[in-house]
Amino acid sequence: MESSRGAPIGMFDSGLGGLTVANALMRRLPTESLLYFGDTARVPYGPKSPETVRRYALQIGEWLVEQGVKCIVVACNTATAHALEALQVSLSVPVIGVVDPGARAAVRASRIGPIGVIGTSGTIASGAYAKAIEAQSANARVLSAACPLFVPLVEEGLVDHQATRLIAHDYLAPMREAQVDTLVLGCTHYPLLSTVIAAEMGQGVQLIDSAEETAAELEQMLIDRELLRDPDDARGHEPTHRFVASDAPQHFLALGGRFLDVPLTAVEYHVFT
Amino acid sequence: MESSRGAPIGMFDSGLGGLTVANALMRRLPTESLLYFGDTARVPYGPKSPETVRRYALQIGEWLVEQGVKCIVVACNTATAHALEALQVSLSVPVIGVVDPGARAAVRASRIGPIGVIGTSGTIASGAYAKAIEAQSANARVLSAACPLFVPLVEEGLVDHQATRLIAHDYLAPMREAQVDTLVLGCTHYPLLSTVIAAEMGQGVQLIDSAEETAAELEQMLIDRELLRDPDDARGHEPTHRFVASDAPQHFLALGGRFLDVPLTAVEYHVFT
Repeated sequence: MESSRGAPIGMFDSGLGGLTVANALMRRLPTESLLYFGDTARVPYGPKSPETVRRYALQIGEWLVEQGVKCIVVACNTATAHALEALQVSLSVPVIGVVDPGARAAVRASRIGPIGVIGTSGTIASGAYAKAIEAQSANARVLSAACPLFVPLVEEGLVDHQATRLIAHDYLAPMREAQVDTLVLGCTHYPLLSTVIAAEMGQGVQLIDSAEETAAELEQMLIDRELLRDPDDARGHEPTHRFVASDAPQHFLALGGRFLDVPLTAVEYHVFT
Repeated sequence: MESSRGAPIGMFDSGLGGLTVANALMRRLPTESLLYFGDTARVPYGPKSPETVRRYALQIGEWLVEQGVKCIVVACNTATAHALEALQVSLSVPVIGVVDPGARAAVRASRIGPIGVIGTSGTIASGAYAKAIEAQSANARVLSAACPLFVPLVEEGLVDHQATRLIAHDYLAPMREAQVDTLVLGCTHYPLLSTVIAAEMGQGVQLIDSAEETAAELEQMLIDRELLRDPDDARGHEPTHRFVASDAPQHFLALGGRFLDVPLTAVEYHVFT
């Protein structure tokens, strides 16, 4: 039996978006193994109700624990917003999400202006970012906007299309008018649209991607709980990464590399019945 | 125990799109009761694999039979393409889909040009329309194109947005170049974009919406199998329609009327576990 220090880090998302977080974890913690689950049979989570997203997240969290992960990163803003507390209460391993790290990075980056937050309908309706930012900085002003078409536009690869620019222009109008100085990309798909979003927002607006900050928080948590992989164990033994999807994995395999930024060679298939 | 003639007609879709078919059924068969299931917890079906869509369709079909329906209309092109045969083999009631009626209407409408078919990635990849059209008319030339963003654009209400026109312009370019004279709207969401699609295609191109033809096929099937509601039973007794969703029903209730074209007053909630 492997010690829990050598066990993989579990992580999940509704689909492919969380691979942007996996990429940040792999760069920051290069000796750690990952087990990534993408719920492609039920994607997207953004427009779905809190109850449904929570049910899916608990099902996946329990499965990851059965697979022997030493901790779980909820690499999806909607699932973090609706289910982080339920996962922390129910599961036997530590669980972190992407909202608190993103909120912390935003508060650090913002100078004077309001902080803007964009995300799925579910994330924005939950108010999770506004609460997390206000918990960090009681005087922070927060402006939120749902951008429900950004996920399908990214999933279809229209990251540099005039239609995407028009839709971004409409979605981001209230952010420009309020002169936010910091904009949280509160969905793991949105970093793939950062060129379009930055062009709409103009110079001087900082875009916050919570992936890096989440990787830093995870590292600290692993140190605090003595769960970092043992250097002696790691030496000479490459980490092993598993990617698992709930729908047939061809689409995940074809598109995943775009999010992960390294080639994907194999995707397993697991169905919840 | 109610006789099966008085039982409701079961129908299902991945979400709201099938309500355009429900509307056609209610107009053609005003004495019949409907039980409509929208799988809003797992919507959309269009980008998902045949195996996953078939699994969902069989689960819903079995549930509709348990609810006592006298027949089932698969009011979703993707589910028809991937699962109609499996449903017909497995279930104890007659099942019809929307692809054959749409194909028949297209063959009737086309004069000389090729027949165009647009639909979700799953419907187009299945080749179901091309097969159905060629079965009707061996010499028909068929050109198909997937339009994966049309469903999210409709679901977000962008039916008259410049971004939608730009995306439609790109998707429909091969149809214009091939000078199709008939274009099958092979997804139950697409009738809501018929103004944009007609403007892109230009005059003289007939748009085929399979809802009306499906209602006609259903009526004939009910007559042939002696399943039409008894006029004596119907007299003085209004039909009762039930609408059921797998996600929390607020979104369905809020948007459903746009598809059904009559107000929706109540939506029930059923979860598959």
